[in-house]
Amino acid sequence: MQSDGTSKSKIVVCRDLGPDVMPLLTKRDDIEVVTWTEDCVCDREWLLKNISGAVGIVIVFSELVNAELLDAAGPNLKVVSTMSVGYEHIHVSELAKRNVRLGYTPDVLTDAVADISVMLALMAGRNANETMGIVREGLWPKFIWAPFALCGPQLSTSGISPSRTVGFLGFGRISHATLARLIPFGVTDCIYSSNPNSAASPKKERDEALLKQYRPQLKSLRPVDRDTLARESDVLFILAPGGPSTRHLIDEDFLRKMKKHSVLVNAGRGTVVDSDALAKALREKWIWGAGIDVVEGEPNIWKDHPLVREPR
Amino acid sequence: MQSDGTSKSKIVVCRDLGPDVMPLLTKRDDIEVVTWTEDCVCDREWLLKNISGAVGIVIVFSELVNAELLDAAGPNLKVVSTMSVGYEHIHVSELAKRNVRLGYTPDVLTDAVADISVMLALMAGRNANETMGIVREGLWPKFIWAPFALCGPQLSTSGISPSRTVGFLGFGRISHATLARLIPFGVTDCIYSSNPNSAASPKKERDEALLKQYRPQLKSLRPVDRDTLARESDVLFILAPGGPSTRHLIDEDFLRKMKKHSVLVNAGRGTVVDSDALAKALREKWIWGAGIDVVEGEPNIWKDHPLVREPR
Repeated sequence: MQSDGTSKSKIVVCRDLGPDVMPLLTKRDDIEVVTWTEDCVCDREWLLKNISGAVGIVIVFSELVNAELLDAAGPNLKVVSTMSVGYEHIHVSELAKRNVRLGYTPDVLTDAVADISVMLALMAGRNANETMGIVREGLWPKFIWAPFALCGPQLSTSGISPSRTVGFLGFGRISHATLARLIPFGVTDCIYSSNPNSAASPKKERDEALLKQYRPQLKSLRPVDRDTLARESDVLFILAPGGPSTRHLIDEDFLRKMKKHSVLVNAGRGTVVDSDALAKALREKWIWGAGIDVVEGEPNIWKDHPLVREPR
Repeated sequence: MQSDGTSKSKIVVCRDLGPDVMPLLTKRDDIEVVTWTEDCVCDREWLLKNISGAVGIVIVFSELVNAELLDAAGPNLKVVSTMSVGYEHIHVSELAKRNVRLGYTPDVLTDAVADISVMLALMAGRNANETMGIVREGLWPKFIWAPFALCGPQLSTSGISPSRTVGFLGFGRISHATLARLIPFGVTDCIYSSNPNSAASPKKERDEALLKQYRPQLKSLRPVDRDTLARESDVLFILAPGGPSTRHLIDEDFLRKMKKHSVLVNAGRGTVVDSDALAKALREKWIWGAGIDVVEGEPNIWKDHPLVREPR
């Protein structure tokens, strides 16, 4: 029984969540579901109007949850649930003041991001963007094959190149899932530098357990400083969160220390990497290539963005 | 001591093989190395002239080794060595007649092709070509994000999708190396149809050993007929050789039987897949996507080729 006299609890859903999810809400007799049905960012005015009296609200990262919105909802509100791993768009202290619970999806993307991280490492090492461009532009028939044309630093180890060091900036769930996928490619050594925000890291017991799990393929796993991370990584995965403490950790100075044949993959947060420095590193071949899932300032990335213009 | 009176054995090298390889030949006092130094196909006339009296010849796949060439070489020739896995460009019976040995590189690309196979499976499942196109064309800023926009069938298993069946057409070294890399992505079942040329397959003992190696993650591994291969594979890898016996094994009939969300990867030989049928399958969405390392008629693939035009 709600305070406005109706017997149904109102839930506002800010994006159609598809046929697998929506019936979980819409088929219940005790819930009144109000849905923003258009497949674009939920209109703020619509939301402020419709949230009044809601018990719960389901959002994605485009909805700012601040005092204004919570006041518009009123005292019925019990839960804010966001379909995202991050919750930078939610003023958590305002929720706490009003005793509203927060739901988020911390682990749902772990495997997806690990998959993308491996994909980008393979693509950057193989110059996939460059080679696909050749085919797309119709240049393949005229392309002169040569034994080493378009070759890159293979991810897998081989007889003449029997070791691979993978580095991680940020060594949480996603990094662990990525490492697991890389083991059969022949990775021999793993180094990491923890997210500077992370509480109790490095974690000796966890590291020993991981090393034991992947032996004998994996020979070593150890925390290192950022200087060593830059110098020793054959493939470096940025899987650290955003925010001021990680901003531009990967800058010109860091990139200049990296190996000429190294590959950088950013599937963490765009702000960790200085885009201009990375474009310069690619242009001047300080590193081999980069695989980028996130970029500073996204989605405002136009076709003349320095990183879009770099084939590698 | 050669028949022409000089004390050095002549070796003709049809492509500069780079600073790791060439010194192995050029630094030896007992060998005269004659090299085609341009980074393009070795001129036939040059080759016919220079091969005379050679003891050995190092080629790549662009050099046709036939009676004409072997006669031009003369009776000193002992070895033809090709930097390739295939030897379709070499008339083996003519070598045998003259008692010339053949060197080739059967295993050197196993890991490389396995890496590419995994990369293409990830890219096709994630619509990488489509999404990179959006960024390249400068459409990202205007792109309307939605919870399921651009989502594809994730390679890794997940809570709501806990099983994955990978299929292999051709189940040799490269398929085994690909399977090994896929295990930590959560693959649960493996089915295969052997290369029709393959001698003693299926091989029960080998299969039991593989299954044992990847348990408990892998639940089953079994040979199947091609009909089952089409119907049950979530990701299908074509890793079979070319030639008449495998030509267009993947045709319209086969593709129509595949799952709507399946992904096809061809890193074997282009001729195994009927390109027109595959383009139709992608256009009409019989399957989710395709990752193609080889294509029938390559390198004569222009930008209006039906497969180049399909975003998936």
